[in-house]
Amino acid sequence: MHRTRVRVVEDALDANNTIARANRDDFDRSDVTVLNLMSAPGAGKTALLERALAQPLPGEARAGVLEGDVQGSMDADRLAALHVPVVQLNTDNGFGGECHLDANMVRSALGHLPLDEIDLLVIENVGNLVCPAEFRVGEDARAMVCSVTEGEDKPLKYPLMFRACELVAINKSDLLPHLDFDLDKLLYNVDVVNPGVRTIVTSARTGEGVEELRGWLGELVARRVPATVPG
Amino acid sequence: MHRTRVRVVEDALDANNTIARANRDDFDRSDVTVLNLMSAPGAGKTALLERALAQPLPGEARAGVLEGDVQGSMDADRLAALHVPVVQLNTDNGFGGECHLDANMVRSALGHLPLDEIDLLVIENVGNLVCPAEFRVGEDARAMVCSVTEGEDKPLKYPLMFRACELVAINKSDLLPHLDFDLDKLLYNVDVVNPGVRTIVTSARTGEGVEELRGWLGELVARRVPATVPG
Repeated sequence: MHRTRVRVVEDALDANNTIARANRDDFDRSDVTVLNLMSAPGAGKTALLERALAQPLPGEARAGVLEGDVQGSMDADRLAALHVPVVQLNTDNGFGGECHLDANMVRSALGHLPLDEIDLLVIENVGNLVCPAEFRVGEDARAMVCSVTEGEDKPLKYPLMFRACELVAINKSDLLPHLDFDLDKLLYNVDVVNPGVRTIVTSARTGEGVEELRGWLGELVARRVPATVPG
Repeated sequence: MHRTRVRVVEDALDANNTIARANRDDFDRSDVTVLNLMSAPGAGKTALLERALAQPLPGEARAGVLEGDVQGSMDADRLAALHVPVVQLNTDNGFGGECHLDANMVRSALGHLPLDEIDLLVIENVGNLVCPAEFRVGEDARAMVCSVTEGEDKPLKYPLMFRACELVAINKSDLLPHLDFDLDKLLYNVDVVNPGVRTIVTSARTGEGVEELRGWLGELVARRVPATVPG
């Protein structure tokens, strides 16, 4: 029984990785850098993107967003006001909805994205600190937003998520004066599970860290290895 | 392909429900009322329990806690200081860990719980607003904690979770003066997805709503239908 179950899980992940590679090939053909952006529900991914994409990115990189939600298009509507291309992807055609995006869901949205008109695609994943980190979707990089309201212990409780990312934005810093929260302890815990990972303290409300985040997005596009897949 | 996938999901849920019923029978034999407590990561479930269980519950009901986490035993350690029986259940023996508790995981912990010495078992689920609502574990009731820092839109984005619960604790009310947050809008959205559901505005920091929550826990135990399963 146990062996069978393990095999099924591996097959499913393999299928996901196969489709993720196909997505990646399509992104390469269009020279699009892709960021998989993850967090717990309500950590502020959309608000941070609203601030970061309100002006052209460094290097004039053009951004687009793929919004993943169980249900609704509220975040996509917010981002559409920025005049960047936004496509909404809902995961609720299961029982209670899927708790993460997988490569096949992202693939189903590719036809709706103007890949040749953007340089950076931000995929805003479903709010969840577990499963989104387990499924590649064809991205170049993964980043997460962690709110200071969530407590210092989250890296230790959800280590795979923190380990999977190359940037951790520590958001809602404007609330620090009102919390019993030790930022140094959080930074220590982040470093324990992902030594040396880049962190940026941010606030979508005050704008703290937003320029640094925009700089990082610009670097992400600039570091892109030119496509090797024939166009 | 699609039909096959649907059938597998139904089988898995059926197995879960079978085991959930077995758990329920065991709880009935010991006359234990069981609450499945859910939330997003960092919404404050543990802190609220610390406040609510710091004194004996109404009717002298004796509480125990089953702590579900992907990894670690930090929350169990916090609650153990209250001198209530606490058992830690980790879900990380998969790839990145399971994002929810299911009936079989709970069943694996039953032997470690002093069921005959408690009247109320609170099962603190893994922080996640999607999958925990899909898996019954043998509970009598489900409740959730929703933090005001998460935004007013969460009921619309994660409707199954809000619909599955008979109590929604709206936590961290002490932060309201520092947030751009419309409490009436959240309450309206909660009522849209789960009309008439009971809500309690709480703060583990100031103690707001904690007495009302303790009263609700006492009612939950008091309303228990006497066991019909032979002992």
